[in-house]
Amino acid sequence: MTGTPAPPDRAGPAPFTAEDYAARMRRAAEAADAAGLAGLLIAPGPDLVWLTGYRPVETERLTLLVLRAGQDPVLLVPTLEAPDAAEAAGAPALTLRDWTDGKDPYGAAAALLGDRGRYGISDNAWALHLLGLRERLPDVGHVALTRALPMLRAVKDAAELDRLAAAGTAADAAYEEILKVAFGGRREREVAEDLAGLLRRFGHAQVDFTIVASGPNGANPHHEAGERVIQRGDMVVLDFGGLKHGYGSDTSRTVHVGEPTDEERKVHDLVRAAQEAGFRAVGPGAACQDVDRAARAVIDDAGYGAYFIHRTGHGIGVTTHEPPYMIEGEEQPLVPGMCFSVEPGVYLPGRFGVRIEDIVAVTEDGGRRLNETSREMAIVD
Amino acid sequence: MTGTPAPPDRAGPAPFTAEDYAARMRRAAEAADAAGLAGLLIAPGPDLVWLTGYRPVETERLTLLVLRAGQDPVLLVPTLEAPDAAEAAGAPALTLRDWTDGKDPYGAAAALLGDRGRYGISDNAWALHLLGLRERLPDVGHVALTRALPMLRAVKDAAELDRLAAAGTAADAAYEEILKVAFGGRREREVAEDLAGLLRRFGHAQVDFTIVASGPNGANPHHEAGERVIQRGDMVVLDFGGLKHGYGSDTSRTVHVGEPTDEERKVHDLVRAAQEAGFRAVGPGAACQDVDRAARAVIDDAGYGAYFIHRTGHGIGVTTHEPPYMIEGEEQPLVPGMCFSVEPGVYLPGRFGVRIEDIVAVTEDGGRRLNETSREMAIVD
Repeated sequence: MTGTPAPPDRAGPAPFTAEDYAARMRRAAEAADAAGLAGLLIAPGPDLVWLTGYRPVETERLTLLVLRAGQDPVLLVPTLEAPDAAEAAGAPALTLRDWTDGKDPYGAAAALLGDRGRYGISDNAWALHLLGLRERLPDVGHVALTRALPMLRAVKDAAELDRLAAAGTAADAAYEEILKVAFGGRREREVAEDLAGLLRRFGHAQVDFTIVASGPNGANPHHEAGERVIQRGDMVVLDFGGLKHGYGSDTSRTVHVGEPTDEERKVHDLVRAAQEAGFRAVGPGAACQDVDRAARAVIDDAGYGAYFIHRTGHGIGVTTHEPPYMIEGEEQPLVPGMCFSVEPGVYLPGRFGVRIEDIVAVTEDGGRRLNETSREMAIVD
Repeated sequence: MTGTPAPPDRAGPAPFTAEDYAARMRRAAEAADAAGLAGLLIAPGPDLVWLTGYRPVETERLTLLVLRAGQDPVLLVPTLEAPDAAEAAGAPALTLRDWTDGKDPYGAAAALLGDRGRYGISDNAWALHLLGLRERLPDVGHVALTRALPMLRAVKDAAELDRLAAAGTAADAAYEEILKVAFGGRREREVAEDLAGLLRRFGHAQVDFTIVASGPNGANPHHEAGERVIQRGDMVVLDFGGLKHGYGSDTSRTVHVGEPTDEERKVHDLVRAAQEAGFRAVGPGAACQDVDRAARAVIDDAGYGAYFIHRTGHGIGVTTHEPPYMIEGEEQPLVPGMCFSVEPGVYLPGRFGVRIEDIVAVTEDGGRRLNETSREMAIVD
């Protein structure tokens, strides 16, 4: 037996109802139909959570939500997980079918689908399951959900924006508190543990990442937190987030232990200006790539373009990485309700890194930051 | 930015070396060749950890290890994760290639493959990535790795068995300690948190599940742990595990708060007898399904067959669910070094459940339990 406990939800906003989930499932099925798809095949993960409230772990046992326009949604689950599935908030809005260990789950799934046409399938559906379905229905095509319907979950409604804002506020509170702890002389991992505890204290049910990247480690954007002892004179990139009431937080600030050098201050100012430029580019009708271009231009113009080695941002919702992506080539226009990170960085190999990140929601007339802590370089002990 | 920190490894066995990983990669490529495959496509997750020691998170950014007989292994990674990949223990045994945000990772991957033939692909590779590869190389076929080479990771060597045994011993120590805490009057979740703390105290770097299923919750095999207050008179199923030094533990015992009824004792005795029968069926040459049949026969004969609603066991290694599966229809013969759970259960809806589980390693002349705590029903407070 294995599995991950559902995050405990503390007192908070009114939970989404079966009607909310029914509306999402209907909207998704209609969007699929409009895109010429026969339907959608939804795997455990953020798509399934968003559509049904059900949060199982993706395993070798097939769990699959089938959505087709004009038909009732059907959720196929392993028999031994059926009691959990039946308790999901969206369960009253769908038909539950189960299959038993030793039986063929792909045959059971195939019986729910036509024998031709193309289905959108969750990005994170396992290859095992996709190949199992293809074997059963060789004339059915598949396309990744974020290719077929990239914006399905991208435009948040008011209840979702409230949750994202609350998650941002909680992450901000964690940041304000972490500035009070000692950095110098402690291991990155210890500060990361403090951060995780603070996120939980401020209502996060799940902590997804607590990056504490000090000195040269800061030059690796995906460095997490290790055994390095933070030194006086270090820049330290902090990047942390998780889920509160089912929606994500993700913010970065770069702090300094003691007084920075002129160069450290210059690079920090540069990233701050780039982040501001990215934020100012946000508004209805701007393309995603415009946000990337605006932030990148500031860094390019200062001659640091080669050291900004990632896209400017990613969407956030029931998970912390989802469309829309703020990246060159992404021409998707921004729409009020979209929510994503703006997080330029400069990474100087072997020396230090700086990243500054806010979650930004698109509004009718621009953007609204969901993180509001100071973006000036904080000096810590 | 997101990611999951690599589990901190405490002082323990000598780490696997680049030579160990090179040998595993060579063996895998040769097995693929012998099975008529053009090669293997390995995604982040247990396969990649086992083959390279590299433990990134599977995301929308493609990370892919390509193994082909007679060729050097190539690991394709996102540029911003390249520094992490270069630090993996197996990195010296492979060629690292990176691709940058905005570029086409599937084109980069396609350049490493032939334009025909069939590749085995990690079960948990994302559909997004499999479909991206198919689009680039439409004449290349794919088969799930556990279908193509189900036993690739199944036979553990001595160093792996030592780790699995140590993980089992640590889980046993956690069980012995949990018997000393109060059950009655506390929430399942509180006992689960105690269990997680104990697993960590005894050296687990990662806790994967801590099931505490009391009273009627015990009848749901996948119930985790919730807000139910455990009552005097409850049966409580405990099922917990995680990773210690990179290898898994997974054990279940069912305890009782205060004196059990005759029926509770009878069902517990029955499951214990079934578990013993499953264990005794383990030995070289027996088929996986023989273990399931042996355990199931005991429960069937007692008239409880309808209440044993899952397979008898699953393999364990760098992850807690992997082949071989002890299930009807699995004719794979057992081989010394295979390691898996034997965990029959009886689940009486609305009333209670009992599950007893040990990890068992196949030896030259039978099986060796890696969990050695008493399987008698413990009476707790």
